[in-house]
Amino acid sequence: MGGVPIFSKAQLMRTKENTLLHLDGDPNWEAFDAPALVGETLRFVSGDKTGNRFKMKYFRDQEQNLVARVWFGPVTEGPPEHAHGGSIAAVLDEVLGLTAWAAGHPVVVGNLNVSFRQLLPIQIVVQVTTRLISVKGRKIMIHGEVSSLDGIVYATGEALCIKISTENLKTAENRVEG
Amino acid sequence: MGGVPIFSKAQLMRTKENTLLHLDGDPNWEAFDAPALVGETLRFVSGDKTGNRFKMKYFRDQEQNLVARVWFGPVTEGPPEHAHGGSIAAVLDEVLGLTAWAAGHPVVVGNLNVSFRQLLPIQIVVQVTTRLISVKGRKIMIHGEVSSLDGIVYATGEALCIKISTENLKTAENRVEG
Repeated sequence: MGGVPIFSKAQLMRTKENTLLHLDGDPNWEAFDAPALVGETLRFVSGDKTGNRFKMKYFRDQEQNLVARVWFGPVTEGPPEHAHGGSIAAVLDEVLGLTAWAAGHPVVVGNLNVSFRQLLPIQIVVQVTTRLISVKGRKIMIHGEVSSLDGIVYATGEALCIKISTENLKTAENRVEG
Repeated sequence: MGGVPIFSKAQLMRTKENTLLHLDGDPNWEAFDAPALVGETLRFVSGDKTGNRFKMKYFRDQEQNLVARVWFGPVTEGPPEHAHGGSIAAVLDEVLGLTAWAAGHPVVVGNLNVSFRQLLPIQIVVQVTTRLISVKGRKIMIHGEVSSLDGIVYATGEALCIKISTENLKTAENRVEG
């Protein structure tokens, strides 16, 4: 990474004006209900109620792959006017983990590897595409990419997800609640 | 990841009551002024003004290593009552990048690798310790660990940082502002 921003200020202003329309995704995609699958508590990323961090919608594309449209809000700032690397990593963590869930595998993310390619301007809508790479025993490898809607790659990510039984999940919750 | 929480609800309540005191760090440490070094814009993590995501203080320990004390607030939630993996990755991204800056190397994080070991209960103060592993040309490798104050390791991280010239930084800003 270390690339310089690719928008002029004027371009960026025009992009910001129309950007939220892009949260609705492609007309050929199907909305994907993440909370119905994994619960309502993903408050840090997609469950953001403030609208200042992320606005985010999940879909399945025509090949049934999970895809997310994400608006990085003002408080995701790291470098001036650009997303904090940590906010990009946070989005990838959630989207890649959910990709395994959406494919029928309840998981936790065991390892997350993020490569930052280009500074990501805040307050525009970008896309996270995903691909399930392999399922080997309890280990599921997912790849993903954060890019602009015209194909500039801002970051790539790999998540090694570990399958859990839903029984384990309930035990974990009981340990906290009991 | 994969681990079950290690606190009973009663233990967790007691921990939460006293936890913010631990943000002040060890009396032998020296406060470290991150904004003075990298600017005021790290809004997503240490620059959080809401107090709902992170409360965070940086120090240098007796060996001059950068160390951070971090409180994960209510909106960092992912799994019920536990930190979203993405919030842990976000903290590691910032702390490991700053470790390079604090050692005199202006950098961007090129790659971040996070291993999740254990679910991290929210609303307690934890510690991020760091170590500069190597400097090879423009590449600086930093390791770090997120742990409880009594030594439970929640996550480990490695950041490959890429040195930038401050001249490049200015150019990047001009491209956005111009």
